[in-house]
Amino acid sequence: MSSQLYDVIHRRRDVRGQFTGAPIPPAVLDRVLAAAHAAPSVGLSQPWDFILVSDETTRAAFHDHVQQERATFASTLDPGAAATFSKIKIEGVRESTLSVVVTYDPDRGSPAVLGRHAIADAGLYSVCLAIQNLWLAATAENLGVGWVSFYREPFVQDLLGIPATIRPVAWLCLGPVTHLEHTPDLERHGWRHRTPWQSAVHENRWSPPVG
Amino acid sequence: MSSQLYDVIHRRRDVRGQFTGAPIPPAVLDRVLAAAHAAPSVGLSQPWDFILVSDETTRAAFHDHVQQERATFASTLDPGAAATFSKIKIEGVRESTLSVVVTYDPDRGSPAVLGRHAIADAGLYSVCLAIQNLWLAATAENLGVGWVSFYREPFVQDLLGIPATIRPVAWLCLGPVTHLEHTPDLERHGWRHRTPWQSAVHENRWSPPVG
Repeated sequence: MSSQLYDVIHRRRDVRGQFTGAPIPPAVLDRVLAAAHAAPSVGLSQPWDFILVSDETTRAAFHDHVQQERATFASTLDPGAAATFSKIKIEGVRESTLSVVVTYDPDRGSPAVLGRHAIADAGLYSVCLAIQNLWLAATAENLGVGWVSFYREPFVQDLLGIPATIRPVAWLCLGPVTHLEHTPDLERHGWRHRTPWQSAVHENRWSPPVG
Repeated sequence: MSSQLYDVIHRRRDVRGQFTGAPIPPAVLDRVLAAAHAAPSVGLSQPWDFILVSDETTRAAFHDHVQQERATFASTLDPGAAATFSKIKIEGVRESTLSVVVTYDPDRGSPAVLGRHAIADAGLYSVCLAIQNLWLAATAENLGVGWVSFYREPFVQDLLGIPATIRPVAWLCLGPVTHLEHTPDLERHGWRHRTPWQSAVHENRWSPPVG
């Protein structure tokens, strides 16, 4: 039994509005990145990279792009959902201390990646495991993480000089926060509510989720 | 600073050969599943399900399928790689206590999943975050986890009655273990070696990985 791990897992939030912009001590950032890099990966391919974006001009350009994508999504909503969405902050790119862009290189460990011949996306899955390690380590270090997903991948590739063969998987905002909210933003604003974990568990065969 | 979390992150292994088959206490399994379900998800969609496969006939059928896929992969290797691969165990399906099959439902939270309009795979990413929570919680509980990826998704859908719209993302072996290896199996057997985390870190723009 392991109360600190569970505490971190359940306290972790997807942060938008609570970033302070204060510096991240270098030793803390090193521990967080080393934790991400310690994730499991298909065929031990470690197919991830982490681009640390501190440059303000770059982050401002990304922020502007995200605002355009926000408008695109908003235009697809019915009036009720649009009203709810209008109250929801979707990124803290400029207020957070650092952006960490996580990428996937499908050529790492090629040609024969052990465990990927039947499931092409297995390498992409590995990158996500590294992201969750990063997220939990940051939470344990009293940093906030916010995953921004209102962007087009080609825009980010162009902005950061990422080759066409490398896929951006996440744009993460990272930094000290005033606090972590007890309840996720989307639940506080009435967008969606969390289900109990039991509703997602099935015995031996698929069955429709309960509730 | 959070020594228990980092200890778990760095001790975690992808287990094949160390399962004992001993029972998992129900309260422990509940904590592990609740930790998985506490993962972040795009638009709070929680698009994952967990099928707990204890049935031995089902697990034997999956095991046989994995052996066929092992042969398929082996046939693609040059002689040196094939010799190395022949020593590597790729699954502990029958020796482990329980299989946990994790699936992705792209329709959960539809039609407007907040944060997924520009990145169709964002829901799939969420499922992987839940898997890493599960993996770390299990490690903290002194259970081993082994992600088996030598399978075809349609086979697993058919075996477990999973609808065509639901995608199997992982077949995880779970259970008590004699120990966790200090060094990953693939490194011990000379398949691949881990890189230092610094090789994956870049400043402000993409650059080729070092080393």
